[in-house]
Amino acid sequence: WSVEDRDGVLQLERQFEFPDFAQALAFTNKVGELAETEGHHPKLTTEWGSVVVTWWSHKIKGLHRNDFVMAARTDAL
Amino acid sequence: WSVEDRDGVLQLERQFEFPDFAQALAFTNKVGELAETEGHHPKLTTEWGSVVVTWWSHKIKGLHRNDFVMAARTDAL
Repeated sequence: WSVEDRDGVLQLERQFEFPDFAQALAFTNKVGELAETEGHHPKLTTEWGSVVVTWWSHKIKGLHRNDFVMAARTDAL
Repeated sequence: WSVEDRDGVLQLERQFEFPDFAQALAFTNKVGELAETEGHHPKLTTEWGSVVVTWWSHKIKGLHRNDFVMAARTDAL
């Protein structure tokens, strides 16, 4: 995971790689299911062979402890 | 749809809005299904309430007639 500063908003971001589009989209759906369960939603950028997952907290315009927890849970999917 | 120039690569892009995360992700999956059927894959950026769909042709590093066809088919989903 890297920490990105986008216009002053800190975000946690990691790229996950896959052998094709279908497996990338399947991962997007897994992260989406986790997001719905927890009520906290990332940005998911799905392409052929990769998904970039970006976590941050809109309310505080930056990173909360929960974003780091969600990043760890994303790794465990 | 707008045409974006990203480091000299022209891309067709449109943002679709939804009332929540689940409906955004459902649309991502619809576009994904279309992409798999046609063997041409966009970038899909899914967030709470929106999906940004980006079409371009990697091989020619720009826009082919097929990208415009896929954009029209995305609108029809």
